[in-house]
Amino acid sequence: MTNSRLEHDFLGERSIPNDAYYGIQTLRALENFNITGIPLRTEPLFVQSLAYVKKAAALANRDLGVLDPAIADCIATACDKVAAGQYDDQFLTDMIQGGAGTSVNMNANEVIANVALELMGHRKGQYEFCHPNNHVNCSQSTNDAYPTAFRIALSNKLIGYAQTLGNLADAFAAKGEEFRNVLKMGRTQLQDAVPMSMGDEFRAFATNLREELLRIEDSRRLISEINMGATAIGTRVNAPDGYAELVTEHLRTITGLDLSLAGDLIEATYDTGAYVQLSGVLKRTAVKLSKICNDLRLLSSGPRTGFNEINLPPLQPGSSIMPGKVNPVVPEVVNQTAFYVIGADLTVTMAAEAGQLQLNVMEPVISFALFTSISYMTNACRTLRDKCVVGITANVAHAEQLVRNSVGIVTQLNPVLGYETSAEIAKEALRTGKSVYDVAVTERGLLSQAKWDEIFTFENLIRPHFIQ
Amino acid sequence: MTNSRLEHDFLGERSIPNDAYYGIQTLRALENFNITGIPLRTEPLFVQSLAYVKKAAALANRDLGVLDPAIADCIATACDKVAAGQYDDQFLTDMIQGGAGTSVNMNANEVIANVALELMGHRKGQYEFCHPNNHVNCSQSTNDAYPTAFRIALSNKLIGYAQTLGNLADAFAAKGEEFRNVLKMGRTQLQDAVPMSMGDEFRAFATNLREELLRIEDSRRLISEINMGATAIGTRVNAPDGYAELVTEHLRTITGLDLSLAGDLIEATYDTGAYVQLSGVLKRTAVKLSKICNDLRLLSSGPRTGFNEINLPPLQPGSSIMPGKVNPVVPEVVNQTAFYVIGADLTVTMAAEAGQLQLNVMEPVISFALFTSISYMTNACRTLRDKCVVGITANVAHAEQLVRNSVGIVTQLNPVLGYETSAEIAKEALRTGKSVYDVAVTERGLLSQAKWDEIFTFENLIRPHFIQ
Amino acid sequence: MTNSRLEHDFLGERSIPNDAYYGIQTLRALENFNITGIPLRTEPLFVQSLAYVKKAAALANRDLGVLDPAIADCIATACDKVAAGQYDDQFLTDMIQGGAGTSVNMNANEVIANVALELMGHRKGQYEFCHPNNHVNCSQSTNDAYPTAFRIALSNKLIGYAQTLGNLADAFAAKGEEFRNVLKMGRTQLQDAVPMSMGDEFRAFATNLREELLRIEDSRRLISEINMGATAIGTRVNAPDGYAELVTEHLRTITGLDLSLAGDLIEATYDTGAYVQLSGVLKRTAVKLSKICNDLRLLSSGPRTGFNEINLPPLQPGSSIMPGKVNPVVPEVVNQTAFYVIGADLTVTMAAEAGQLQLNVMEPVISFALFTSISYMTNACRTLRDKCVVGITANVAHAEQLVRNSVGIVTQLNPVLGYETSAEIAKEALRTGKSVYDVAVTERGLLSQAKWDEIFTFENLIRPHFIQ
Amino acid sequence: MTNSRLEHDFLGERSIPNDAYYGIQTLRALENFNITGIPLRTEPLFVQSLAYVKKAAALANRDLGVLDPAIADCIATACDKVAAGQYDDQFLTDMIQGGAGTSVNMNANEVIANVALELMGHRKGQYEFCHPNNHVNCSQSTNDAYPTAFRIALSNKLIGYAQTLGNLADAFAAKGEEFRNVLKMGRTQLQDAVPMSMGDEFRAFATNLREELLRIEDSRRLISEINMGATAIGTRVNAPDGYAELVTEHLRTITGLDLSLAGDLIEATYDTGAYVQLSGVLKRTAVKLSKICNDLRLLSSGPRTGFNEINLPPLQPGSSIMPGKVNPVVPEVVNQTAFYVIGADLTVTMAAEAGQLQLNVMEPVISFALFTSISYMTNACRTLRDKCVVGITANVAHAEQLVRNSVGIVTQLNPVLGYETSAEIAKEALRTGKSVYDVAVTERGLLSQAKWDEIFTFENLIRPHFIQ
Repeated sequence: MTNSRLEHDFLGERSIPNDAYYGIQTLRALENFNITGIPLRTEPLFVQSLAYVKKAAALANRDLGVLDPAIADCIATACDKVAAGQYDDQFLTDMIQGGAGTSVNMNANEVIANVALELMGHRKGQYEFCHPNNHVNCSQSTNDAYPTAFRIALSNKLIGYAQTLGNLADAFAAKGEEFRNVLKMGRTQLQDAVPMSMGDEFRAFATNLREELLRIEDSRRLISEINMGATAIGTRVNAPDGYAELVTEHLRTITGLDLSLAGDLIEATYDTGAYVQLSGVLKRTAVKLSKICNDLRLLSSGPRTGFNEINLPPLQPGSSIMPGKVNPVVPEVVNQTAFYVIGADLTVTMAAEAGQLQLNVMEPVISFALFTSISYMTNACRTLRDKCVVGITANVAHAEQLVRNSVGIVTQLNPVLGYETSAEIAKEALRTGKSVYDVAVTERGLLSQAKWDEIFTFENLIRPHFIQ
Repeated sequence: MTNSRLEHDFLGERSIPNDAYYGIQTLRALENFNITGIPLRTEPLFVQSLAYVKKAAALANRDLGVLDPAIADCIATACDKVAAGQYDDQFLTDMIQGGAGTSVNMNANEVIANVALELMGHRKGQYEFCHPNNHVNCSQSTNDAYPTAFRIALSNKLIGYAQTLGNLADAFAAKGEEFRNVLKMGRTQLQDAVPMSMGDEFRAFATNLREELLRIEDSRRLISEINMGATAIGTRVNAPDGYAELVTEHLRTITGLDLSLAGDLIEATYDTGAYVQLSGVLKRTAVKLSKICNDLRLLSSGPRTGFNEINLPPLQPGSSIMPGKVNPVVPEVVNQTAFYVIGADLTVTMAAEAGQLQLNVMEPVISFALFTSISYMTNACRTLRDKCVVGITANVAHAEQLVRNSVGIVTQLNPVLGYETSAEIAKEALRTGKSVYDVAVTERGLLSQAKWDEIFTFENLIRPHFIQ
Repeated sequence: MTNSRLEHDFLGERSIPNDAYYGIQTLRALENFNITGIPLRTEPLFVQSLAYVKKAAALANRDLGVLDPAIADCIATACDKVAAGQYDDQFLTDMIQGGAGTSVNMNANEVIANVALELMGHRKGQYEFCHPNNHVNCSQSTNDAYPTAFRIALSNKLIGYAQTLGNLADAFAAKGEEFRNVLKMGRTQLQDAVPMSMGDEFRAFATNLREELLRIEDSRRLISEINMGATAIGTRVNAPDGYAELVTEHLRTITGLDLSLAGDLIEATYDTGAYVQLSGVLKRTAVKLSKICNDLRLLSSGPRTGFNEINLPPLQPGSSIMPGKVNPVVPEVVNQTAFYVIGADLTVTMAAEAGQLQLNVMEPVISFALFTSISYMTNACRTLRDKCVVGITANVAHAEQLVRNSVGIVTQLNPVLGYETSAEIAKEALRTGKSVYDVAVTERGLLSQAKWDEIFTFENLIRPHFIQ
Repeated sequence: MTNSRLEHDFLGERSIPNDAYYGIQTLRALENFNITGIPLRTEPLFVQSLAYVKKAAALANRDLGVLDPAIADCIATACDKVAAGQYDDQFLTDMIQGGAGTSVNMNANEVIANVALELMGHRKGQYEFCHPNNHVNCSQSTNDAYPTAFRIALSNKLIGYAQTLGNLADAFAAKGEEFRNVLKMGRTQLQDAVPMSMGDEFRAFATNLREELLRIEDSRRLISEINMGATAIGTRVNAPDGYAELVTEHLRTITGLDLSLAGDLIEATYDTGAYVQLSGVLKRTAVKLSKICNDLRLLSSGPRTGFNEINLPPLQPGSSIMPGKVNPVVPEVVNQTAFYVIGADLTVTMAAEAGQLQLNVMEPVISFALFTSISYMTNACRTLRDKCVVGITANVAHAEQLVRNSVGIVTQLNPVLGYETSAEIAKEALRTGKSVYDVAVTERGLLSQAKWDEIFTFENLIRPHFIQ
């Protein structure tokens, strides 16, 4: 007995290791595509979704009488085993390949066929009993099976991402509560503006990120539209009547997701709009996270020559040469993750634009970009929450002293003295280094001590009320 | 009587031409910002929206007793005149400026103050009676007035854009009907795939673009959230109680738009998420339009050495040297517009990421990018519809002949003969140049003439039904 | 006598206003392309370069006997007038058009033909005496004439840009000298690092930008390679022997630029690599300018709650609500310009990628992106220099006090005490709020007063020397 | 004896596995940074370069008397072993981290220190004999050591890339020779243009890519400028006199690269311009490769309903449903690689723009983007050459027949008949489906059979000469 078996396709014959569940077309893909070195199995949710799709197709084909029930059931069982992760190591195709996902689809077809063959008591490669194309891929094309599996994987992956992002937002909200009565200077254009509560500043980060959860839900809705039954180009060629609807129904049951069949299967088969939208949502969150991390870095700048309003938890020595230096390493790594995601969005954009006629052949790089972006963003959100946000402390006294010493509080004199007089006070304070109080009350007597005291209470500084 | 008046701000005094309704701060902006040479007045909807905002503020201030009713009413009347476009020529600030829109806001404050002064019987510049800051800008900051006006302008501009895009989609849908019974070859990866109806191909373009109308509505919903009353940084400093809600109500009435007050004014004052989302939607449509135009150019390639399935209306001689050459100039210009919009989306992304702390100072370049993108996209959609799509004709006989002569029709033998036998037929046909019929029926007798005839009817080619 | 003349092309006949020097093909372009509303004449250097190209071609055609000398000389004279800007108002084609520049080329051919006709004593439109295609465009195609003119215009436009950028670098260098002895804290990762000279900081800005001048020269070298004589696709069809070399020689003389003929005319006719490279250079400078402006905004943050090490010249009131606020408006507008340019680089990238086979039809949008980018960058550099850099002042005492009060100076104890002991000192200083001196000398006696004094001289802080 | 040792830094104490050569700071990095899951060791050239840098520093420190020669020599030997790849498995830091590379630098310092300690006969962790900071990192900061190592790694990585890219260009050039006498139709704007040699088309691909080799050399020149001796921020603090020059000299010797010391160390320490330039070069090549692959896919489109001028080698069955379909999978995967690289260039751009003051903290993501881009591009070029270009064949007869049957050949009548008459012939041919010959010679007698024969020789079609 040899250690390999012969397989053939219409291009010829090749030897496959006997223990391999994949077959000749996967082998060709391994030879043809060596770009990233990152195999399909690094996205187990994708492998799982391929199995879901193949199972749903087998069941629908059985129901419609185009697949022998015995074969269909074995395929379904094989799919369950694949979906459970037992054959992840057989999914070896490089994440970026040519062929619009055909290699990925055939990798799944071959593995499932061979697992099913063994379930039937046959040997791997005895495809006359269960064929990757004729049986496992029955009523399907790569062009419907691949994007459907991709979308299911994305949808499931987004669940975990949204959870982590929500946790991060909650952590900011908790800090918002904690810092509710910390008075600090608001800044616009990096210039002293007017006082505010540090709690409001942190709650705003939470608000900012919570909006993203709604956008992620939008994306999940868009990607829940699938094109099963479209087959090659959306004409449903080779799919039995009623198949598209039935396989969608099976998939809904299997996945528990609210999947729907696209109304225009021709369009749905080439359209990548949902990926562009999802990528845009990821980018938007990346932009927001990057802005927030920039703020955390600004607010913690110092310790002695910066703003120094907050402290980030020290995580590691910050320098190989500067003793005692601690850096905002977590916001920094989140910024960098954001830049990756923004770059990946461009990759998705280019790939989407490159679709031609009845198909977009660039979906594999879209999947690579989206899967890595979601993974990295999830990791970044988790890291930011666990390693940074929950441990942030406020330099309460310093933050309040900056306000008291500022010129920006002059804005609160506007309703009483008017913009021009207030501007004169500000100008004089800046020129001389004096305080607003000194100029407005002591020197110029523009308002009484009582009025000053009415306006500049702590409560009115941190949460101003209108006083004329 | 001189031709100029003196105005001052806290930086000093400057001479303003007497016929100018703008004042010293606009003059400073004109001196400080000379980047694009494209003035604010090129976006009349923006000028109009600024007037709407100022009117709503005046009315709310009057209602709340912080503005003398006589002054408030004059300001409101002045705003009506500005909104009607009578003073567009006074809005001269460069589309890109520093200062987070302060120059734009002050340009509006100054023009409206001076128009109001004349209505009151005063001379321009007699700001003691109606002051740009104290009266026109009362209870406002640039940081709420500017983004609110920007959002109203965007919302209105999107209405026209959506209409034009919808018309384009309708034109594709009409061609879908017209070409319903044109048989043609579907292509995936630029390789012959399976037959289809040209009508389905064009209807899919319509489907593809109509989805965009929903996304535009999403965007309009997001940008309808405003932050009036937030004033400088969202703390409502200097705004009377109830002002934010009241001014929003007035704005809803004045604009007829479904505006809502943001729940978190601190966040809303710096957040640019809605612009990023809108820019992403514009980009997505640009990506789709570019793909569609690529397809139109492919399908009309030739006339003799290309696909030559359709004819675009000839619009102009295509070459200064090649006689008789006619080019797909309209799809080409739409492609280029799409590239502009995709670039502008990156500008928006960078600008959004650059927000710091309580404000995003980069909003002017965001407005420049979004306004030009919407304008160019609107123009491109109109041009594509009027100058190209409505005049497209099909080369019916040629398209059908390509199908009949193809090997791709072999796919329809799969359910009857299986994938491997079908592949053998295809391979033989390609090797020898023979037809599928010759190989399958005549030479190899793999199916009867009757079966062949059952499968390869015109109707089954153009809209295949499952035959086993 | 009517106010219009009839012109025809192979698509039909159209009426042209009699005073128009442009002809039927320009008219068609005006009708077909309404995207940006920005006409060709906004780039007078491009109009000029088109005239240069047409003149060189006329002279070469005359020299080679394919053009009647009398006609050639009139064309040349007409070109001189066009190059002098006398007919700029006739160049009306929208900056973005389909047709790969054919409309622009024909706009030039038509205007020059009609100017030449008048010089000959004929009326406009009497093309039998001087025809836009047969005579003005003789031995040319849009596909060589257009990119050649584009490249000449770019090369000349870059001269002015480089000059302005160089002036900006010089202004930074002058500040570098001025601030030579201003001691300040260096910062890495927004955290206090080690002391430095503010002069070095500003000189580094100069160094950073001066490197760009070399990159611009690289770009000018790449774009000086032209493809005149390639005609339609690089095969030189319809161009007489020796023409390509001769017309290049004439162009060298006319323009004074060091132009060279591409070695592979097939490749040169479709290649857009030089534009991608140039766009990348503009982007790189934009990235650097943006970083520098971010720094200027950080260093001038405050006045009371920020770094406050430098003052930017006040240019305009910074807020409509906050009295006395002055913002860094010029750095802000330069940041925004940078974001525009970075976006435009993506437009160029997409357009370059979209080239197909023997031509890149997307050159017009490339020209739009590059011309606007260079214009805006030039304006931004001029504004930054004139309105900001030359007026920057240092807060000398405050900057030095930040150093003296910092913990970062502990780094200079490394060679004496080792990294770990130094880290202990730093940690203690930060924990207690004490100075490094207090901890190291007074409390712990880790080094003598004499050693301390040796290490921490002003000169050794601002320009450290190694002391063990 | 335990399986772990205790290590400490100024943040506390941690247990390290005894067999680990890395130490406490690497451990902290492993805990803090879990973003990509891709460890430093996936770039062995980077690990090697870190060892080179540390060796050069040790030698320079020894030469200048600041490091005990015995320790220096052990460090140097340890570096040799690390550079040889013996400890690659100890370089575990995630490719994206915060801290501006400090974790990477400390990972190297710790591994080298422990390898040196064992060479000295000590146990790992006995840092009193050889300390990661005091000895291995002596006279260095992350801020000079890290970018220097990064640049050396890039330079070496580019050598292999350039070689592979050159091989690809050579393969195109060989096809250019092979197809020298294949007549085919040139196409502009996807429309039939004029005839050409297929050999010229393929040689142009070679020309196009060979230009990239020069640009890569430009990049290698720029990145060969290093900042060793700058230490923390470029002031050379803690580096002995002459160190910067000496360590550079040692590095030149060790690496064999033409490295030079930056003239302005302050600037060089934060500048990322060289990375932006390199990334731009990679992007430019990606743009070109994508265009070329688009062309290959167009030219091989069909087999029956496309251009079908060339055949790409069949590599794998192209469809799970369409029998016999073979797709251009290699050009497709190269397109996708190009989109990745274009996206990564944006990541680099964002990261470069985010530098602040004396450092750019985003270098790790720049390194991730550049290393993956170079790897993927190298793989893509190799794949394109080996799996596709070398096996391309021409459909000679079909390509020539397309020319003979075209209308585009009418251009060659221009010099004889003029543009307008030629346009009339073209129009008539297109309207009626007749050939140019039929219209021009047979029907209209516009030129004699002899003249026709003179003009339309094979040689004059494929390599036209001027005939009037």
